[in-house]
Amino acid sequence: MATIALARTTHKMPLVGFGLWKVTNSSCADTVYNAIKAGYRLFDGAGDYGNEKEAGEGVRRAIKDGLVKREDLFITSKLWNTFHAKEHVKPMAKKQLGLWGLDYFDLFLVHFPISLQYVDPAERYPPEWWDATKKVVTLGSTPMHETWKEMEALVDDGLAKNIGRSNCQGSVLVDMLTYARIKPQVLQIELHPFLSQDALVKFAKTLGIAITAYSSFGPQSYFELGADGQSLFTHNVVAALAKQHNKTPAQVLLRWATQREIAVIPKSNSEARLKENFDCMSFDLKPEEIKALSDLNCNFRLNDPSEIDPRLAIFA
Amino acid sequence: MATIALARTTHKMPLVGFGLWKVTNSSCADTVYNAIKAGYRLFDGAGDYGNEKEAGEGVRRAIKDGLVKREDLFITSKLWNTFHAKEHVKPMAKKQLGLWGLDYFDLFLVHFPISLQYVDPAERYPPEWWDATKKVVTLGSTPMHETWKEMEALVDDGLAKNIGRSNCQGSVLVDMLTYARIKPQVLQIELHPFLSQDALVKFAKTLGIAITAYSSFGPQSYFELGADGQSLFTHNVVAALAKQHNKTPAQVLLRWATQREIAVIPKSNSEARLKENFDCMSFDLKPEEIKALSDLNCNFRLNDPSEIDPRLAIFA
Repeated sequence: MATIALARTTHKMPLVGFGLWKVTNSSCADTVYNAIKAGYRLFDGAGDYGNEKEAGEGVRRAIKDGLVKREDLFITSKLWNTFHAKEHVKPMAKKQLGLWGLDYFDLFLVHFPISLQYVDPAERYPPEWWDATKKVVTLGSTPMHETWKEMEALVDDGLAKNIGRSNCQGSVLVDMLTYARIKPQVLQIELHPFLSQDALVKFAKTLGIAITAYSSFGPQSYFELGADGQSLFTHNVVAALAKQHNKTPAQVLLRWATQREIAVIPKSNSEARLKENFDCMSFDLKPEEIKALSDLNCNFRLNDPSEIDPRLAIFA
Repeated sequence: MATIALARTTHKMPLVGFGLWKVTNSSCADTVYNAIKAGYRLFDGAGDYGNEKEAGEGVRRAIKDGLVKREDLFITSKLWNTFHAKEHVKPMAKKQLGLWGLDYFDLFLVHFPISLQYVDPAERYPPEWWDATKKVVTLGSTPMHETWKEMEALVDDGLAKNIGRSNCQGSVLVDMLTYARIKPQVLQIELHPFLSQDALVKFAKTLGIAITAYSSFGPQSYFELGADGQSLFTHNVVAALAKQHNKTPAQVLLRWATQREIAVIPKSNSEARLKENFDCMSFDLKPEEIKALSDLNCNFRLNDPSEIDPRLAIFA
């Protein structure tokens, strides 16, 4: 299996993983189990996805049935914005590990560089951006350096083998490097041909930070949330490359990333697509084909919290 | 004179000021003096520009000659990257005030969100990005929150009436707001029709942070540094608007900003252009004309430290 060796620990992170965002609770355990059967070893979860318990069930069943051992898997989760304060980071990591039924995460990320006011999980979990009835975002007051110190303590305590960030820009990383005792190992960002993020990818590689792309299919994952826009699957550049290589558009989009050592975490509820996505390493794009895809970049971002509240303009 | 009232102090910052970047030492005192005579009240300097002593001479001569009083002026300066450590911020502010011959700055900005290793001013001043013979950038280790705490102390001590930032992205501001006891009053950024920064401008306004645009003429200021590219002065959209309003392209570009309450700091070594730039408030662009200029945006950035060293990718 193709992997990336993470810089500090040399732990191997699979290049193709399974993303748990929007995997429904009722199907999640089976989906994870089937994905393991299909060969997936990396699962990308988050407190915010609200399905860690079910994902953990799938994992435990697969281990019990002898499909894999724990050490064959690479489990990622993320700390939500409401738990950035120093007294909340470790309890939440432990709570999330408890939901998964695990002793450690292979990778634990700070989900967003945004601190929101604490929400007691007994009241609302996952807390999301706001109370759905009130729809008011309440900012928190924890600086990122305080949160990161607690993330480092998770490594010290063996609760996370690796730590990283998500949804960060260059300047956040520049600042972090002044105070991080343990540098971020992975940066997970929205990345697809409409948002190619060339400068950020280049920068992360300079720093020895591995990149995981989310929303590799661009607008596709957001259509079900009501978004509109040009599909990447039917875009003529993508479709032509798919035809030429006798692959699906999804496979072409994933290969555009993985061939450049960018990890991907597609999700699918269909077993056929799940296998199809996993089989995205069996061909190579030519350099000019990768460039043709990168040239589709138009800085089109789908996941921007400033649309929820203008004070959250982390990508401005 | 058109001004912006700064949020916390209600101090009035002129919308049109004079930028001291690249003003040669030999002409600087006269240029400042003449600019004051022409009506300029805001001067935008920086330790890095290497002409604070001469700029101060111009200011002092104008005060001595009775052209203005100190309180009529709005003097801005900036802390260089090599002085971010807590023990260096105040001594440098004092040193810079000494060069100007002033008791306080109206505005003191952190020049870049980048910490570089300390350079003793006795050895090299201004220290710039690197020693010109060695050409190696040496990163510092001061987190931004530590630097900002010392910037706040400058306000407490009366050395700076207002403090702010320059060259920051959204995520830096989001983080700052968690730890800033005194919020930044001004954000100074590269801003012209080829880099319209709409999202960042909107965000800063949401937060009550005033924006100062630098490099309002786009590539123009960089031609003398060897840059090439399409001039904004001769761009057909700009030229057509200049003709229609019977103004110069420079005046159109400045009005594009000031009409939206974005301060500008053009520089000129010519007395005629100095007056021309100052007279950029005497006409209004129609909303569709402002939009036509904003539509030229192509995220073309001229001042990007990652070109000096890939580890400085603060805009990635």
